[in-house]
Amino acid sequence: MERMNRQILLNKRPKGFPDESAFKLIEKETPEPADDQVLVKAHYLSVDPYMRGRMSEAKSYAEPFEVGQPLKGGAVGEVIKSNHLDFLAGDFVTGLLDWADHTAVEGQSLRKIHPDAAPITTALYIAGMPGLTAYFGLLYIGQPQAGETVVISGAAGAVGMVVGQIAKMKGCRVVGIAGSEEKVNYLKKELNFDAVINYKESENISKALKEVVPGGVDIYFDNVGGEISDAVLLRLNFHARVVLCGQIAHYNDEKKEMGVRVLPYLLTRSVLLKGFIVRDYRDYFDEGMRDLAKWLNEGKIQYRENIVEGLENAPDAFLGLFRGDNIGKQLVKVS
Amino acid sequence: MERMNRQILLNKRPKGFPDESAFKLIEKETPEPADDQVLVKAHYLSVDPYMRGRMSEAKSYAEPFEVGQPLKGGAVGEVIKSNHLDFLAGDFVTGLLDWADHTAVEGQSLRKIHPDAAPITTALYIAGMPGLTAYFGLLYIGQPQAGETVVISGAAGAVGMVVGQIAKMKGCRVVGIAGSEEKVNYLKKELNFDAVINYKESENISKALKEVVPGGVDIYFDNVGGEISDAVLLRLNFHARVVLCGQIAHYNDEKKEMGVRVLPYLLTRSVLLKGFIVRDYRDYFDEGMRDLAKWLNEGKIQYRENIVEGLENAPDAFLGLFRGDNIGKQLVKVS
Repeated sequence: MERMNRQILLNKRPKGFPDESAFKLIEKETPEPADDQVLVKAHYLSVDPYMRGRMSEAKSYAEPFEVGQPLKGGAVGEVIKSNHLDFLAGDFVTGLLDWADHTAVEGQSLRKIHPDAAPITTALYIAGMPGLTAYFGLLYIGQPQAGETVVISGAAGAVGMVVGQIAKMKGCRVVGIAGSEEKVNYLKKELNFDAVINYKESENISKALKEVVPGGVDIYFDNVGGEISDAVLLRLNFHARVVLCGQIAHYNDEKKEMGVRVLPYLLTRSVLLKGFIVRDYRDYFDEGMRDLAKWLNEGKIQYRENIVEGLENAPDAFLGLFRGDNIGKQLVKVS
Repeated sequence: MERMNRQILLNKRPKGFPDESAFKLIEKETPEPADDQVLVKAHYLSVDPYMRGRMSEAKSYAEPFEVGQPLKGGAVGEVIKSNHLDFLAGDFVTGLLDWADHTAVEGQSLRKIHPDAAPITTALYIAGMPGLTAYFGLLYIGQPQAGETVVISGAAGAVGMVVGQIAKMKGCRVVGIAGSEEKVNYLKKELNFDAVINYKESENISKALKEVVPGGVDIYFDNVGGEISDAVLLRLNFHARVVLCGQIAHYNDEKKEMGVRVLPYLLTRSVLLKGFIVRDYRDYFDEGMRDLAKWLNEGKIQYRENIVEGLENAPDAFLGLFRGDNIGKQLVKVS
């Protein structure tokens, strides 16, 4: 076993848009797992927009990261040493791990994965939290009906691309909003979205939207917020559903932002809007995982991953989420 | 039967805050009821904030009123002449009637009421649409649990006062927001609200709210919108519910209004927000009416009505809703 363990710490809490100074790479001794713990060597780290919230002091649905302590996120890795009955050295597992080469972690917080069933990285998106987020948000909150129009912001992200493909399976007309021509082409040509708006090239998002959804919007799956959401919310149909999944446009806000007042529109259209985190649906995870794995194996869900090499590049990969760099799931290959 | 029939027409569509010029009082011959119609003499008219929406051209959940035609609203009256099998002269009925002395109306659109069971005016609020609106909004969307904190804006209005009393029955802590000391006193002393904020006397509604709901808000029943709602939405608890019932602060808006962006707050607290109109729950009206009538008869729901005399004063009574004149249900006694 390697004796030294690289870790990325939260160096200081960022204000507004974070930069590299929020992170610090250090080396420490590799920890020994305690009773019921497992030592895991990380293979891939997931970098996710929600982690920005945990870098701030304000309490949200997840506890804030501590300054001077390693960041933690979804990851897949290999068991190096086990003091837990359910795991053996060599097992592949997924769970929350440090941004580090190795983590000593409670065995009960891990889930075993089977490298023969699907590429292990898919446990971090299609067959993992982003996949489940798409699944429960669209199916449990959105409740799509065949023939309805679904609009997805952040459509080329890890969640958005799954939402769109499930919505197509359900017979919906699917319209994506994304931020580059490469993303637009991918969503249209490879994932068969019915229409995609490149909001960065669009002079008037509201007008562009009106052209592609002349009949209005039945479901809005929102990963983004801001002016994109303003435009969509003003085009909702009666009894529309808004699945409030992410607000990446606002994670770096330093004060209350002003925008169009949307409540009057939500009222007159009898709209249902629901914010959620995937944990709200933990009692149904088995069902979600079963369906997602089935669709994955049947080739009904296509996917794309964006892999950055090297633990030391995890901070930049994370910052790239806010620059809109990634198509599909952003991952870091640790070594 | 009187031959002449006073009617109040929509004279022109108001822009922004309406005034008397939007209305016109005329006299016409009293109509003859056609087959299956009933001629009803109006006793009391209900004036309701939602009618402002129907005075505009924009399509909403109800069709716009037509310029040059009588306004229509909830009313109670007496059958003068019936061509419908279910009604006899002398029956008391409720339904949508013209703002007029007499209306010839399809019998099937009316519901018979029993003057011995409760004052006939209560069919226009506690045992009518405002009561049902309070009932379904609070119980079906809000789903109050004992011990939770419920905040109600427009708390002294026809809907708000019923919401508060049902929430008290369910064991909730009830906080009202209203616009005069008289309203505050009424809600506290006669309806036993736990706390009431006079937003017109409060320098900082957000701070005033923090003082009376230190543990945050579990259910927000919103009749108002605007800055009052901004303050409440920023104090929602995890898994809070927002019952979006009215937005009286915005019914006279001439353009999109700007305000605090609320989606980020709704997201991080996994909030459910639902706009609705009472018609969405029409399949459950019997249940709602049964419970409301029972509570009314048992004295569990107190009520207050504000009666203006004379059909000619209906426009001013309607305008008074936006000035915040009324405590409880605003009615017009036709003659």
